[in-house]
Amino acid sequence: MQTESEEVLMARFEELSVLEKEFEDVELEIIRKAEALHAPLYTKRAEFIAKIPHFWSLVFEQAPPEIDNFIQPSDSKVFAECFDTFEVSRFEIDDPNGSPRSFSLKFGFKENEYFEDRILEKKFWFRRSRDWAGLVSEPVQIHWKKGKDLTGGLTDAAYKLGEARKKLASDSSDMAARRKETKLTEYQKLVELIETSSQSSVSFFGIFSFVSGYRWISAEESAKVEKEDKANLEKIRRGEKTEDDEDEEEDTQDYQEVEVFPEADEIVTIIAEDMWPNAIKYYKATFDEEEDDEDLSDLDVEGFDSDADAMEEDGSDQEVDIRALVGKGRKPGQSPPSKKQRKK
Amino acid sequence: MQTESEEVLMARFEELSVLEKEFEDVELEIIRKAEALHAPLYTKRAEFIAKIPHFWSLVFEQAPPEIDNFIQPSDSKVFAECFDTFEVSRFEIDDPNGSPRSFSLKFGFKENEYFEDRILEKKFWFRRSRDWAGLVSEPVQIHWKKGKDLTGGLTDAAYKLGEARKKLASDSSDMAARRKETKLTEYQKLVELIETSSQSSVSFFGIFSFVSGYRWISAEESAKVEKEDKANLEKIRRGEKTEDDEDEEEDTQDYQEVEVFPEADEIVTIIAEDMWPNAIKYYKATFDEEEDDEDLSDLDVEGFDSDADAMEEDGSDQEVDIRALVGKGRKPGQSPPSKKQRKK
Repeated sequence: MQTESEEVLMARFEELSVLEKEFEDVELEIIRKAEALHAPLYTKRAEFIAKIPHFWSLVFEQAPPEIDNFIQPSDSKVFAECFDTFEVSRFEIDDPNGSPRSFSLKFGFKENEYFEDRILEKKFWFRRSRDWAGLVSEPVQIHWKKGKDLTGGLTDAAYKLGEARKKLASDSSDMAARRKETKLTEYQKLVELIETSSQSSVSFFGIFSFVSGYRWISAEESAKVEKEDKANLEKIRRGEKTEDDEDEEEDTQDYQEVEVFPEADEIVTIIAEDMWPNAIKYYKATFDEEEDDEDLSDLDVEGFDSDADAMEEDGSDQEVDIRALVGKGRKPGQSPPSKKQRKK
Repeated sequence: MQTESEEVLMARFEELSVLEKEFEDVELEIIRKAEALHAPLYTKRAEFIAKIPHFWSLVFEQAPPEIDNFIQPSDSKVFAECFDTFEVSRFEIDDPNGSPRSFSLKFGFKENEYFEDRILEKKFWFRRSRDWAGLVSEPVQIHWKKGKDLTGGLTDAAYKLGEARKKLASDSSDMAARRKETKLTEYQKLVELIETSSQSSVSFFGIFSFVSGYRWISAEESAKVEKEDKANLEKIRRGEKTEDDEDEEEDTQDYQEVEVFPEADEIVTIIAEDMWPNAIKYYKATFDEEEDDEDLSDLDVEGFDSDADAMEEDGSDQEVDIRALVGKGRKPGQSPPSKKQRKK
């Protein structure tokens, strides 16, 4: 009976996979429709907020805790001083070989004492391997000014490994080829640097080094997997038997040992799906918090107790400083929002 | 200079509010479009999963931690034994006076030893007061069988207060009228019952008593606020001066003292927006976890250490029991998903 039940279960699973794919197609269509509806508003908003100094610094200052926990006091200082423009774009939305789930974050900065770059753009591609699906990215170089690298060399080391990997031009779907990367000196250097870094206080700028929550997946590998999945689903739809996956040797390599910012995919997804469309709400929330100022500073301090020096310099007053820039405080005649007011 | 800056800020705020409203309208349109795209799939899925025993019990067993933390071992037992059908419906989506954000959760149960009800339906209305917007609901009565009430009388007491409030027929926008409710004996009884209950281990069925994360808001009050907001935005669009809110006396009453399940609005939003469209993914995840069984049981035990008796009876084996119902274990030939596989 156990065997029969397993067989029934297997057939059900395959049929469920067909239905699941239809749900996934609808999700993608919803992303496309949402983007089309939002597009004119994003343009209008960009024009309007160009007149508002510190708009994006203030939005990020109000980030939900899942993000705020990763913004160190020294990051906050950089944001307050020179974070100028911000844009999320779904750059593969009309690309039949791309995914509406892919997006880029484009941070614009004023001239500043920290790095040479005026634009830092980070692209995230939604890709699939046989046993995983999610966002992957290439490390972005930040041209830090002398002595100003907030990541202690992590972004440089990750960028160098990324360039070295490109030269290998290996097939990311092939385990043996993938292993070549782990032999690179750039790989070992990054492993060591991550081991010696204090992971609890890695700079938010570490997200520019993000590669994957699993491992790097090339466009070719992802396209191949998509094609196989599609063929498999077609077979199920026609009622044909599907082949079992070939029993690939299990890859026991932990590619996360070179991941500078393992939580980046979750953080940037919240930025793209929540903070980007709801930026005005987050901005306005800045002016609702005067009464909570003391509490907020306390929270900040607690969050950074692992990094007491940096905190002393930049920490506990940060929240107050940045709001002072825009005439901190609730404006008269505006009704106070409840602490439980929904963000959407 | 401070005064001028405040004036400029005020004007900007008003203009931003106009833009914010346009974003909100787009959000509602996206919900409508998403619902239209999903509708045929939900029908198809309902037909298909009618053949799968325990589908919804298993989906809820896989609930994300934000929800799972609120499902007690004894709730889990009820779900495993008799939770049969489930449906989310956006019942105001075509109602010009309603909101696409309103939804109902309809739980269907087989005959069971716990309560008489075969259907428990909970409606959530998206409503606004002057200073808050969110989901409100009316307490639903659960006809518990003798000695089987998992909520220790909370659902009964909340239901009785709800009925008593209806008889008052007071205007929820009027503070003096609202205060009448707090004088009801049903109000005081519920306050006392909540005070003496162990809030850390309130049954998941407590969500049926949820009223609001703030306070009850009637359809009339919400409609009035919507109308005022609209008129105000029209004035801003025409460049006219808007009036300051009349300085209402601040309402210091804490209506949350009669809220049985303050987190319910957040929980049910995750159920409606994530678990409902992604139910197949959650169901399939049941079969990916065999290797983690021990770990999971351990986690369960930790989570419920405040309720050691209930745990002993229902707790640590629950996760294993329910999956045994469907021939627990990974089916052959299915590739194992990574622990970081995305839920969407």
